[in-house]
Amino acid sequence: MTDGRVPRVTATLAERIAAWSSALDLGAVPVEVIHAAKRCIVDVAGVSLAAAPHPLMRRIVEHARGVYAPGAAGALGFPDRFSPAGAALVNGTAGHALDFDDTSYAGIMHGSTVVLPAALAATQEVRGDGRRLLEAFVAGSEVAYAVALLCTTRHYFRGWWSTATFGVFGAAAAAARALELSAAQTTTALALAGTQAAGQKVAFGTDAKPYIAGRTAAVGVEAALLARRGLGGPPAVFEGSCGFIELLNDGHADAGGINGLGDSWRLVQPGIFFKQYPVCSAAHAAVELTQRLLQDNGLSGDSVRKVICEVTPLVAMSLVYDRPATLQEAQFSMPFAVGTMLARGELGIGSLTSETLSDSRVRDAMGRVEMRRLDSLHTDEAPEGARVSLITAEGNTLQGYLGQPAGMPGNPLTDERLHEKFLRCAEAGGIVDLRARGLLEHLDALESAPLAFAPFWKPNRHVAK
Amino acid sequence: MTDGRVPRVTATLAERIAAWSSALDLGAVPVEVIHAAKRCIVDVAGVSLAAAPHPLMRRIVEHARGVYAPGAAGALGFPDRFSPAGAALVNGTAGHALDFDDTSYAGIMHGSTVVLPAALAATQEVRGDGRRLLEAFVAGSEVAYAVALLCTTRHYFRGWWSTATFGVFGAAAAAARALELSAAQTTTALALAGTQAAGQKVAFGTDAKPYIAGRTAAVGVEAALLARRGLGGPPAVFEGSCGFIELLNDGHADAGGINGLGDSWRLVQPGIFFKQYPVCSAAHAAVELTQRLLQDNGLSGDSVRKVICEVTPLVAMSLVYDRPATLQEAQFSMPFAVGTMLARGELGIGSLTSETLSDSRVRDAMGRVEMRRLDSLHTDEAPEGARVSLITAEGNTLQGYLGQPAGMPGNPLTDERLHEKFLRCAEAGGIVDLRARGLLEHLDALESAPLAFAPFWKPNRHVAK
Repeated sequence: MTDGRVPRVTATLAERIAAWSSALDLGAVPVEVIHAAKRCIVDVAGVSLAAAPHPLMRRIVEHARGVYAPGAAGALGFPDRFSPAGAALVNGTAGHALDFDDTSYAGIMHGSTVVLPAALAATQEVRGDGRRLLEAFVAGSEVAYAVALLCTTRHYFRGWWSTATFGVFGAAAAAARALELSAAQTTTALALAGTQAAGQKVAFGTDAKPYIAGRTAAVGVEAALLARRGLGGPPAVFEGSCGFIELLNDGHADAGGINGLGDSWRLVQPGIFFKQYPVCSAAHAAVELTQRLLQDNGLSGDSVRKVICEVTPLVAMSLVYDRPATLQEAQFSMPFAVGTMLARGELGIGSLTSETLSDSRVRDAMGRVEMRRLDSLHTDEAPEGARVSLITAEGNTLQGYLGQPAGMPGNPLTDERLHEKFLRCAEAGGIVDLRARGLLEHLDALESAPLAFAPFWKPNRHVAK
Repeated sequence: MTDGRVPRVTATLAERIAAWSSALDLGAVPVEVIHAAKRCIVDVAGVSLAAAPHPLMRRIVEHARGVYAPGAAGALGFPDRFSPAGAALVNGTAGHALDFDDTSYAGIMHGSTVVLPAALAATQEVRGDGRRLLEAFVAGSEVAYAVALLCTTRHYFRGWWSTATFGVFGAAAAAARALELSAAQTTTALALAGTQAAGQKVAFGTDAKPYIAGRTAAVGVEAALLARRGLGGPPAVFEGSCGFIELLNDGHADAGGINGLGDSWRLVQPGIFFKQYPVCSAAHAAVELTQRLLQDNGLSGDSVRKVICEVTPLVAMSLVYDRPATLQEAQFSMPFAVGTMLARGELGIGSLTSETLSDSRVRDAMGRVEMRRLDSLHTDEAPEGARVSLITAEGNTLQGYLGQPAGMPGNPLTDERLHEKFLRCAEAGGIVDLRARGLLEHLDALESAPLAFAPFWKPNRHVAK
């Protein structure tokens, strides 16, 4: 070296991540990981379809029609096909519009809603098959969760929305894998994406939250496309001076998260939480327990005078709207979640309407729900657990505790229940019967499909216009 | 209020900013501010044209052709017209590709390269005139600099690239003004843009730096477009829990910056620095002083044995490449900047080539340049000053100090010299003679032009393809 610089002998974190993700082959992925990945894809595809009638989605799709070129990448629930960045923006927003998409406790993030749109758009851009999509999705998911473990949940509690700030690396890695970028190009994709890492929890309860998921997916795709065109970026984007770890994680990093790539698979350990209710995961334990206590004791919600939900700190921190004024606020409201269960006996996609929120029976039931933070309730295995006490009109108290509601990795939904959720979601998006079952079968056999997600874009589809 | 919430009587910072910027009328803007704004527009338009032959710009434009829909908004230096977000991406990158664009010491940021592309794209989207463009540019610039004063330069020194993190608010405000959004919609535009605020100084010296400027302009435009479509966002994006100030500025805020909107005009106080050399502003004092010492003493660069540049902390922090390997590194290198002046007697756009960097005469001259940090040299009026000592072959020492090189607000370029710079830049982009002078005249009379930047997109233009 004549330029006075010491040659670098140690790979940067981004280079190590890129070396792994760019070389990932589905043949090296354990079958249980492939199964877990397919469950994520089925789930997020379903909740994306269900979001099509949501006013936010109409606005985002109309925006995309004006801004993005037509292309090979489809928009879930809509007839449009866009350039990959445009499709990623639409599908990333769709996946999170109902807040009904999956979650990982690695970093506390919604991974699939950011990773799948990037993987799908890039795979469709190169007319890739189902196997390519699965490779890209597994690569992107594992990268996102590895970054989450690198930064730990302190990042989320600091106020960043991990879904976006970690997800952007997952989106970039997924798109890079689908485009078959080299390790060096994938490093650049991670670098370009990382300098765009953004997303603050102040967005919770507004359209900005799902929009951020969509924009994050689009940024990841753009980073991979630009890396393919030969742009450069900072390989030390994580650990470099004035880089991600210094600025977005106050200098804290646990490189163990990166070391585990390919040895541990985060899609199965800690695993993924699939929601059975379309509200913040923090409300799930209390809602399920309320439903169970009513059913087990043959009670109607009307006969309950008071519901006291004692909750962990994480739950109390997440459910900030005691008297929600909008549907998005309602998704972060314990009184709305439990009150709807009391008044209507269920809490499904169909419950998430203005009519529900203004229904006097629901409002009355909400007034009977009280949430109390109880720090001693916290356990590492059940950070979103709840103890529920129903006090009946007669003054009896029925009580229970639930740490892991159905859908949690420790209490997983069966494939059958996950498929039922998909079909209900598809129906909410206007896709029914044979067509919905055809989509499900396609996703269930994705690794042998000649084109990724092909049946979603058949000309005679029943989709929201 | 029956929902238990206390009505909010105090406007949020974003609401206060939006109330001002959405109502801005050029008639209320002092003539010296309009003059300053036009100087910025001329300067950034010129450096954007000059960037057209840069390999980065070819890549970005080809990317935009694949990703963005055709539309009404032009790409400076290229024949393309894109949807507004696509044009903002291209023009924002172009404005900073040569690092030759203007700077403000409010927040230490390149404002115009982010604000102008957003203002221009949104104005062209609605077929607005030159007056509309000027209103949007003034609104966006003042908002960006007000946010900078709100957060102070600690943000930059913390490691954030203020150009992007503050600029995104300026881009959103500019686009919102051009689209004639209401105050409420403008608040949402600021909110959506703010949750996307990103940009770390780790990007310096790579393609990621100009790309971030472009992406920031595009995010601001997208935020305004989505606000126009009715999306919502968090009005407390700055001061809210888990918002911009808490996460990107460690909780520090000086609301005085916002209070001054419309009373103080940051475009004239502290004013704008226009570069005369296409390298980091931190190198300017030493380069100009070297040139002056050579000229005043009738010396050639070859007769100088050694150049010692004693510099302020800010300069030392910025010029991190002692032996640059790429042109982007060279732009942050004191030996390259002063060495090129020694070897060639000038440092212009034409100097920024691989040929210069590999020229043995330049390499030899670079080896004779030494930079030394001298903290006592710092003054608030001249944070990027330098003391230069030339030691001649005969052993004589010539010494000088320059606090504010030409182009600084305290030592401004005349309109004539600014126009000369524009013409040299236009020529570098392939636009010469009458056509270049026509563009200049158009920009100089922008407030009475029926269409914004119209002559840039005449069919017979001489532009890079």
